[in-house]
Amino acid sequence: MHDPAWGAAAAGKALAPMTIERREPKPHDVVLEILFCGVCHSDIHQARDEWSGALFPMVPGHEIVGRVTSVGSAASKYKVGDLAGVGCLVDSCRKCPPCSDGFEQHCEGGMALTYNGTEMDRQTPTYGGYSTQIVVDEGYVVRIPAGLDPAAAAPLLCAGITTYSPLRRWGCKPGDQVGVVGLGGLGHMAVKLAASMGAEVTVFSTSTSKEADARRLGAKHFVVTKSAAALEALKNKLDLIIDTVSAPHDYGAYLAMLRARGAMVIVGAPTSSITVSPFALIMGSKSLAGSLIGGIAETQEMLDHCAKHGIASDIELIGIDKINEAYERVLKSDVRYRFVIDIASLRSP
Amino acid sequence: MHDPAWGAAAAGKALAPMTIERREPKPHDVVLEILFCGVCHSDIHQARDEWSGALFPMVPGHEIVGRVTSVGSAASKYKVGDLAGVGCLVDSCRKCPPCSDGFEQHCEGGMALTYNGTEMDRQTPTYGGYSTQIVVDEGYVVRIPAGLDPAAAAPLLCAGITTYSPLRRWGCKPGDQVGVVGLGGLGHMAVKLAASMGAEVTVFSTSTSKEADARRLGAKHFVVTKSAAALEALKNKLDLIIDTVSAPHDYGAYLAMLRARGAMVIVGAPTSSITVSPFALIMGSKSLAGSLIGGIAETQEMLDHCAKHGIASDIELIGIDKINEAYERVLKSDVRYRFVIDIASLRSP
Repeated sequence: MHDPAWGAAAAGKALAPMTIERREPKPHDVVLEILFCGVCHSDIHQARDEWSGALFPMVPGHEIVGRVTSVGSAASKYKVGDLAGVGCLVDSCRKCPPCSDGFEQHCEGGMALTYNGTEMDRQTPTYGGYSTQIVVDEGYVVRIPAGLDPAAAAPLLCAGITTYSPLRRWGCKPGDQVGVVGLGGLGHMAVKLAASMGAEVTVFSTSTSKEADARRLGAKHFVVTKSAAALEALKNKLDLIIDTVSAPHDYGAYLAMLRARGAMVIVGAPTSSITVSPFALIMGSKSLAGSLIGGIAETQEMLDHCAKHGIASDIELIGIDKINEAYERVLKSDVRYRFVIDIASLRSP
Repeated sequence: MHDPAWGAAAAGKALAPMTIERREPKPHDVVLEILFCGVCHSDIHQARDEWSGALFPMVPGHEIVGRVTSVGSAASKYKVGDLAGVGCLVDSCRKCPPCSDGFEQHCEGGMALTYNGTEMDRQTPTYGGYSTQIVVDEGYVVRIPAGLDPAAAAPLLCAGITTYSPLRRWGCKPGDQVGVVGLGGLGHMAVKLAASMGAEVTVFSTSTSKEADARRLGAKHFVVTKSAAALEALKNKLDLIIDTVSAPHDYGAYLAMLRARGAMVIVGAPTSSITVSPFALIMGSKSLAGSLIGGIAETQEMLDHCAKHGIASDIELIGIDKINEAYERVLKSDVRYRFVIDIASLRSP
């Protein structure tokens, strides 16, 4: 299948129109006409090969919302016309312990990434959502519930599940004190989701410029991180911290704000190492954890939760011709809070 | 109450006989005639003021087993003649959230340490178990179950609970793959306890000299940590790692051996910082946690578990006159696996 797309021909090249070849649908596949695709910071890292090993040509995009246009003969979950989503992975081995437990993102065989990867045959390249259609096994497709705006739902497929999963795993519940470090694409979803679970949310940010936004999104408290007194006042007060910041920062200062047995979960991906004192973990029996997106079933659960609570991403909708400019603005944190590409712009240039 | 003891008159001084003044028993107190006291590595750190802020004269010892000789008018848990134990703490505020939840070791008011601390009045110094008797509120005393050898039970009050608590908290269950890093006082208890919970235990050690011991204690596998191939073969295989090593070591190598969503728990206390790659935590949604002893109820649960499973510490029983020599041997890891002082040696010098 020929598919008009925008992608990078080589590492660091500006994104430009290209035509890619999608695999032919198999019996368990559905085909989606892509409507919207979110722009994740990791799209930029990968298009510029900053994590090395990138495959080109690359069509980024793993926050995909589309409409089902074709259903394979053995597929039964979706019918033509359904609104559906695809996140960071399009397949996995389906046999290893994590796959069996619903943690396909931790597939020991290596999941098939939605782009910058290959199908499980380890040959067929995968291409992301900056394109007009995608072919995916129905087991790796999620339903977009009625009531969610399809454009604003797109970022839920990565930013949403990345913050929902650790909140659930670490037991976020009504009355909990939850800290969210950083208010970007991930952080703004963490605030909305934690608040929707009944938590009292404190946002930590380097500047006061986002305070009004933080409160509008559902935060009860806002702390400027350069205020040592404000951090000290929160010592032993937080049940859970979701850390979305990828710039180097002081992990010990946040661990000190956790109550005994609390957890700090890293979902931002700093390129530098993390240094902590062992006593910062031992004295309060605290945890420093990481979290990687979420499994397929959990992604569906997250979407249903968002529909129920009227939550989606705050977005800035752009045409594909603005994508290179959008990348520059993402790098300057100049977006509130996620760019979403209107894929109609790829159809009628 | 005058109490013959051995202690350090000042930081780094050899331990020597001294007489200390114990507080008079109050209505909720019991008095224990001390029979045995374990020698914990932390006794040495504190007697030498290596963690700073130490109080002198200091009588170390927080692995105490004794017999109840007196019961206060308002105390009801114990009767004269009962075998009882005292661990690392002798009181706490009893009001803060951790105290209310049974995590007295995380008391926000600051627990009363068994030695090198003060009672909750923040004035009366506390003295540990290298002495003939101790006065403790009955709420901070645990019962030594019938069937446990009192001398071998003493180290359970610190080494036992320190390893039992994280095994329970992190869900150790039959069939789990549990790694134990280091085979000293803490490590040998971790092996016994994890095996008693049905786990398949792998011991990691720097040399082969402890392999036979590891297997005798209940480990199924033994890995010499300098074998990169052996570590690589365990990639993604372990459910839980209990790290008892206080010397600097490579945390990333162990995190790589955890399966997805696994946890590595630090109970040894390295003096240097821990450095890990954020990706080592994020990619498998793994946790690096600390754990500090355990609460009073959990300590009792641990003792009951040990009695049921016939578990105690492997010990070398010494007279108090050997204590300074024992300290030197602990520093050389030359003990299998815990020195316990026969307190009878303080009564009949």
